[in-house]
Amino acid sequence: MSRKSRHEKPRRMNAFYAQSGGVTAVINASAAGVIEAAREHPKRIGKVFAGRNGIIGALTEDLIDTGKESGKAIAALKHTPSGAFGSCRYKLKGLDENRAEYERLIEVFRAHGIGYFFYNGGGDSADTCLKVSQLGESLGYPIQAIHVPKTVDNDLAVTDCCPGFGSVAKYVAVSIREAGFDVASMAKTSTKVFVLEVMGRHAGWIAAAGGLAAERDGDAPQVIVFPEVAFDETAFLARVQGSVEHNGYCAIVVSEGVRNAEGKFLAEAGTRDAFGHAQLGGVAPLLADLVKRKLGYKHHWAVADYLQRAARHIASATDLAQAYAVGRAAVELALEGENAVMPTIVRLRDEPYKWKVGKADLAEVANHEKFMPRDFISADGFHITKKCRRYLAPLIEGEAYPPYRDGLPRYVTLKNAAVRKKLAPFELKAK
Amino acid sequence: MSRKSRHEKPRRMNAFYAQSGGVTAVINASAAGVIEAAREHPKRIGKVFAGRNGIIGALTEDLIDTGKESGKAIAALKHTPSGAFGSCRYKLKGLDENRAEYERLIEVFRAHGIGYFFYNGGGDSADTCLKVSQLGESLGYPIQAIHVPKTVDNDLAVTDCCPGFGSVAKYVAVSIREAGFDVASMAKTSTKVFVLEVMGRHAGWIAAAGGLAAERDGDAPQVIVFPEVAFDETAFLARVQGSVEHNGYCAIVVSEGVRNAEGKFLAEAGTRDAFGHAQLGGVAPLLADLVKRKLGYKHHWAVADYLQRAARHIASATDLAQAYAVGRAAVELALEGENAVMPTIVRLRDEPYKWKVGKADLAEVANHEKFMPRDFISADGFHITKKCRRYLAPLIEGEAYPPYRDGLPRYVTLKNAAVRKKLAPFELKAK
Repeated sequence: MSRKSRHEKPRRMNAFYAQSGGVTAVINASAAGVIEAAREHPKRIGKVFAGRNGIIGALTEDLIDTGKESGKAIAALKHTPSGAFGSCRYKLKGLDENRAEYERLIEVFRAHGIGYFFYNGGGDSADTCLKVSQLGESLGYPIQAIHVPKTVDNDLAVTDCCPGFGSVAKYVAVSIREAGFDVASMAKTSTKVFVLEVMGRHAGWIAAAGGLAAERDGDAPQVIVFPEVAFDETAFLARVQGSVEHNGYCAIVVSEGVRNAEGKFLAEAGTRDAFGHAQLGGVAPLLADLVKRKLGYKHHWAVADYLQRAARHIASATDLAQAYAVGRAAVELALEGENAVMPTIVRLRDEPYKWKVGKADLAEVANHEKFMPRDFISADGFHITKKCRRYLAPLIEGEAYPPYRDGLPRYVTLKNAAVRKKLAPFELKAK
Repeated sequence: MSRKSRHEKPRRMNAFYAQSGGVTAVINASAAGVIEAAREHPKRIGKVFAGRNGIIGALTEDLIDTGKESGKAIAALKHTPSGAFGSCRYKLKGLDENRAEYERLIEVFRAHGIGYFFYNGGGDSADTCLKVSQLGESLGYPIQAIHVPKTVDNDLAVTDCCPGFGSVAKYVAVSIREAGFDVASMAKTSTKVFVLEVMGRHAGWIAAAGGLAAERDGDAPQVIVFPEVAFDETAFLARVQGSVEHNGYCAIVVSEGVRNAEGKFLAEAGTRDAFGHAQLGGVAPLLADLVKRKLGYKHHWAVADYLQRAARHIASATDLAQAYAVGRAAVELALEGENAVMPTIVRLRDEPYKWKVGKADLAEVANHEKFMPRDFISADGFHITKKCRRYLAPLIEGEAYPPYRDGLPRYVTLKNAAVRKKLAPFELKAK
């Protein structure tokens, strides 16, 4: 399905790389993969320019010369969370609505001899990447656009899993195991119910990962609340009470995206005060309060928020390896002449886990979202199935600790030297 | 100051050990220290009985025979968070008010040949421990009561620091560094302010530890909100705005115990709805909302809650070593004939950090709380001083990773075999 670029291209061109959307513990490992692989082909790829703050860097010609970074600094990206060049939430509109921005991209690429466009992001970015490739074709500019998959949400189509997810999955599984031990030891006279809120606005992959900690009957978490299952208060309270009565306590993982039967986010639906002001808290305090009011149990709750996706200190070695591999593969695909494609993770077997890097046509990725299969959620809607566990378990395997000094992880901050501008300024459209 | 027990004591007696109050990532390491040291002296110490759920286990004669646990299982306590025998929040009242409970303790000790009472907890437990020692004296029963220090709050007197604190300190410093990297990379088009709420109802030690991540000017966290400093909204907002303007973003650590100028907890004072119902959230969402309303910045917030004190996966090696050492030292002090004492951590030097185990009289510990010195907080009230950093830095040094299998830490769950009861049941007073 992938298309070879039809336009004549110089043998050696520069590359552009940018990070898009919410960052992860391992997106910089993909950056390292791209840059290190490019450096191995000096006859084909000249400089690698990074966009400062994602695609905005390309639009505003705010380019970073990664050639100024030492090999050691680039290697350190593998153990540094978040987006080293800055990310952005900036969705390019369709070609018809906003041709000027796409043309500007091509103009910037032309001015800086950029023939390779590596875009590291999720579903929206895949769409942008596809459009860039299409415009390159229609304007007769020889750009090869390769998407590098990244999202903690694990909702990208085609790829078996998505780099960034395995590490947040590991964080959540480790954290709920630890908190479970804590509440278990407090439950006799104090806290009986603990609620951990995790990310996942539309899909319950991250919440499901918490379920990995429950290896034996009675282990934490005893209850998982998914966005895929309409929240049933009665059933939920019965499950919580059952766990307290059976195990002495109940540890709960709840997805931020849980909705009521009317499809409204719980965190919004029930959380306006008498004046209609939005409530401040998330869904964890809401559920904790519900438990307190209806069952009378003392509770604690946590909201992990950015901690979960930035937690490079407990990243999954599998996830890290995959993030790095898709970065390298993007360059290799480009050098093979590919365009409008994305390297994917292909699962070869579950146990022992084996995977390889594959390839997907961007058109298959761009407008599709991957939801949790219904048979990954137990019949009662409050836990994961064995099938789900078989899928998730390998993704959190292995520890990949960053280096420490003075008790703190040593994350790299790059020089991010700006490339001299050659073009007139360009005004960004409002998002 | 310590007193040798005046009562005649058999050469060999059993020991009682219990865990009290909020648990930590390393309290089980103290348990391992007690049990391993006791096992090295079989001619002096017979069995080590653990109280199931702390002092309640002693009162209700619900004793655990730790002799049924293998050496491997006891060693595994060193890498297992929380309280392996169950903890409790149960404060024994004064002797005058509640002599029956103290007499019951002695009765249980007598029935099970217990001559050593090791109580692992914070300030309240130190007080209980002191009273047990006094009652032993007055009733003529030869009990030696040794307190083993434990609290994430670091508010125990005399000891330079308290086992349990170093690990939560490390968790908070690592987490805010990681979240800082995250928000820095999102700030251009999205989140500019991140708020992390940490424990510390009365003292800002834990919040202060977040400050360790700010090694260079501009590093996260840029703002720390302490319970020791009355919250000044105007000054706070100016600091946040200044950081966003200067660094592009602002990462904030806030102690749950922050109060307004009237001394009310912020999380309570401003969080009742029109009907007077208590607001669900903590102080992090409150501050985040304040920033949004007054400065218009997009925000994210996290509440670490139990995750911070259960985070054995990122425990401080220094903290772990100290927790284990005070457990061992408690047994050694007992064998030296000490009573009503607590092993302490004595700091010998800051750099390189050197410490040893010392000894404090319980009377000096029981009714004193250690607050942060004012000169540990910067003049503007929103960060730590160099002096504070010098104190805190060694406490988070070193990583002490637990073993992993299948991507998850392997924490031990003990058999916790019950000892056969010999006495009539005892009814607990309400707390």
